[in-house]
Formats: sequence, C-alpha cells, structure tokens
Amino acid sequence: MGVTYLDLKNANVARVRAAIRSGDYTGHTAGLGAGYLQANVVIMPEAYALDFMRFCQRNPKPCPLTGVSDTGVPMMQTMGQDIDIRRDVPAYSIYRDGVLNGSATDISDLWQDDMVAFALGCSFTFEHAVQTAGIPLWHIQNDTTVPMFRTSVQTVPAGRFDGPMVVSMRAIPQGRIDEVTEISRRYPLAHGSPLHVGDPGKIGIADVTQPDWGDPAPIGPGEVPVFWACGVTPQVAIEQAQLPLCITHKPGHMLITDVAEDAEVPILRHPE
Amino acid sequence: MGVTYLDLKNANVARVRAAIRSGDYTGHTAGLGAGYLQANVVIMPEAYALDFMRFCQRNPKPCPLTGVSDTGVPMMQTMGQDIDIRRDVPAYSIYRDGVLNGSATDISDLWQDDMVAFALGCSFTFEHAVQTAGIPLWHIQNDTTVPMFRTSVQTVPAGRFDGPMVVSMRAIPQGRIDEVTEISRRYPLAHGSPLHVGDPGKIGIADVTQPDWGDPAPIGPGEVPVFWACGVTPQVAIEQAQLPLCITHKPGHMLITDVAEDAEVPILRHPE
Repeated sequence: MGVTYLDLKNANVARVRAAIRSGDYTGHTAGLGAGYLQANVVIMPEAYALDFMRFCQRNPKPCPLTGVSDTGVPMMQTMGQDIDIRRDVPAYSIYRDGVLNGSATDISDLWQDDMVAFALGCSFTFEHAVQTAGIPLWHIQNDTTVPMFRTSVQTVPAGRFDGPMVVSMRAIPQGRIDEVTEISRRYPLAHGSPLHVGDPGKIGIADVTQPDWGDPAPIGPGEVPVFWACGVTPQVAIEQAQLPLCITHKPGHMLITDVAEDAEVPILRHPE
Repeated sequence: MGVTYLDLKNANVARVRAAIRSGDYTGHTAGLGAGYLQANVVIMPEAYALDFMRFCQRNPKPCPLTGVSDTGVPMMQTMGQDIDIRRDVPAYSIYRDGVLNGSATDISDLWQDDMVAFALGCSFTFEHAVQTAGIPLWHIQNDTTVPMFRTSVQTVPAGRFDGPMVVSMRAIPQGRIDEVTEISRRYPLAHGSPLHVGDPGKIGIADVTQPDWGDPAPIGPGEVPVFWACGVTPQVAIEQAQLPLCITHKPGHMLITDVAEDAEVPILRHPE
C-alpha cells in the first residue's frame, strides 16, 4: 500500500520513518521531517571502518560525521530512539568493488555481522537557515537538484579513501555573501562555511553551467556563485576505494533522525 | 641545557616545539604558542582505535577529536608541518593495564608499528575568548588549575570505553551567563557550551569546594558555577578500559599545533 510524498509532507518524524520502514514510502526526503537532522548513510565492513573514520575526521567539511554504529549492530542509537539502518532509509545504492551494482529499499539480507554504519550530515540544515534569513535558493524554488561539481581540490587521504572534493553551487546576491557565509559557518554538521566564493575556475570548474551531478542552475545578474563542500565527496572516495561491498543511501533518499537540526551536537543521549 | 617558561612565553610555535622536541623544555604549556590550538594527546594500539574514535564521536563535548594519525605513523600531518607525536609533547603519562606506570619526556622507545595517536581539543581556546570578552576567570588570574569534578552524568559508551562525564567549573557573574554560553558554543573543538549551569547537585557534585582534580576556586557573591565537559573524561574512560599500553600527555603539558585556535576546522591541509 503506497504512501505519497504529500501524505507525509506534514507528518512527524516517527510517522515518516514508519512509512519508510514498512516499505510504503520509498521516495526522496527533501522537506520531510521538518526541523530534524537528515543524514547521508554509508555502510561497510569493519575492516575499512577505521580508515573511513579517519577520512571523515580529516575532511570534516564534505564528511561531517554525525553517527557511527557498533560493529554488527544496525541500530543508530545516538541519533534516534529506534533507527534500524537496514530498513529506515527509503532507498539504498549497493556497490561491489566500487561499482554501483543495484539498489534496494531494505538491505536486511545484505547486513553482515562485521558491518559498521555511518551517518553524515547534509546541506538541508543550512539551506533551511539561509531561506529563513530571506535568501532564496533557486534549486529549491524550482524543485530541481542542486548543481554539483568535481573540483581540482584534493581531499586529505586516509588508507584507501582519497579523491577530489565535490562541491555544490548556489547563486547568492553579491550583497548577502557575508551573511550566507556567517550562517553556514554556524552549521559544521551541514558542511559549514563555503569552500570558495566567486571564480569557478579557481577550483578547477571549467563550465559552471554544466554540473557533473544534479541540474544546472542560473547565476542571475548581481549574483555570485558560492561553492560548498558536498556529501558526494565521500561517495566518490568510496567508489575509488573499491570495497568488496559498500551500501549507501540513494541520492536524495536520506535517513531522517530524531536529532533536532539545530542541535549543538548530534547525540540524542548526550546530556544537555 | 634547560629553557624556562619565560624564555618561551613570547616565542613562536616553531621555537616552542623545537625546545620541547630537544628535551630542553619539559614544563606546562598554558599561555605558550598564543593563538594556536593546543591538544590533549592519547596514543594506543590500533586494536582499540576504532572503538576510541566511536567514543569520541559519541561524546563530542568532552572528547572533541582534532586529529588522528595513520597507524604506525607518528606524524600528525593534519595539525602541523612537522609534528612528531613521540617527541613534541613536553611530558607523557604511561598507562599499563589502566594503571599509571610512569612518565617520560620522549616516548620514541615505546612507539610501536601498531600505534595510533589521537589529538583532542582543550579548553584553552574558549578561555581566551571569554577573557577577551572581559569576563575574568579566577583560576587563571590566580595561576591555579581549574577545579574538575566527577559527575553522575554518564558518557555514551563504545566498546571498552565508558565512564562518568568529568566537568570543569568556572564561576561566572550571573548577568554574563548567556554571553559566556554563546561564546563557548562557538568553539565545538574546545568543549562547546556548558553542560550545566547553576546547581552542582543536579549533576552529582556533592561539594563544589572540593574538586576531584585541580585546585578549589571560590564562587563569589553574584556568581554562578558553570560546568563544562572536560578533557579528563577520556582519561577516566581510558583508565577503566585497562588497555595493555596507553600513553597520554601529562596533565597541563599539551601538544601545541600549527592550527589557528579560531580555525573553523582543525585541518591544516584543508583548503579554505
């Protein structure tokens, strides 16, 4: 029995996650569970987990780590009361030896005793804050995917994990650059302040109208392209690492957590 | 040939670290290398490193991870141009099976191919910011160690690592609580905002005049005790974990890094 996006648009987080767990909702999560942190998901064998954590620690802007499971335990205990990472993401991508090998809406049959699940913050949080400040974001107003680009900036490697920094671009009015920088810096779990403002060529982007991922977005008169570190960066590093098995969320189909999106730390059990 | 604290008081970071590496300076680091991030240090066999990283991720206020070495590599490459973690800390504590077993000013002979070194942020950064805002801190003005207390608040465990949250106490004028909270929240790598404001009993502290570590500090008229998560927390967790070998900095004798203390992320090679 399918549940539509509109059915869930104003539902609380528990209801949204229940619809996802049951398999009734398998769509994207943008705009769902308003006010709560959404996360990218990466699941891999423990043998690679320490290096992947090091990669995240060394590249905190593209890879802001918000949660890590115990080995073989699919519950993300610090991010929610009852989050089963095998079933609570609407859709998963399955990589074998670095190659996309299939997708699924439930990975219970692929879960192994040596698996570790990671959750990484995404840009939704700071996008909400920017819009709340009255700065419009074209891709949201036009219901497209933000344009993303491979850059010439390199990540700091760790073990097998390495690769270029991927950025997302948002066109911002010239007069509001400082403000948008200040706002985004307040959200280190949502990629923090911009990686670069102004000249796409400076970070190796040849044509800002031709994104490598997502949809093109215009840069209007009086607007400046602003580039933020992007959650596709670890995705590229994971593909290059060619792990025998690695499972991620399907782009746009995130984990919705019980952590408030403006929480100082993404730890539910952390006493405040 | 000894070098004194006063010799180094206004020296740059490279000069301070050189005096430490050569063994000419083995004292405490408070006030040295002004403007640069100082870090607590924990070194352990790789077998425990993934759980310790999980412990830090789950307890970001007491354990703000600022750097992690590769396994067997003593250089902290993301925090400085030339930081050798075996020699660049003025003094080390050596724990065997969870018991303090000795100290050293150079641990080259104890370093093993399976060692991983961790650096964790400390409170110096936010203390500077608080003082700059014109809020005096009694323990600094009186050249004593901040009072620290074991609390009834529990950390979120990971593997062997577990234990109570340890806090430091600073007495703050009632009218400036909001300000000091706001300032400290800006420094997530220096323990962030307070864990508790006001009532020591609420977090299991029976007598606020009798600290478990450090020196007593008075709470003056019109002042309120404010408690921040403290870097002794991982120290207690490490002792409880009873690792066969674990090496830490000696309290007060920190690693001085090349990372600016107000850096958004503690990664030198991270492109900004």
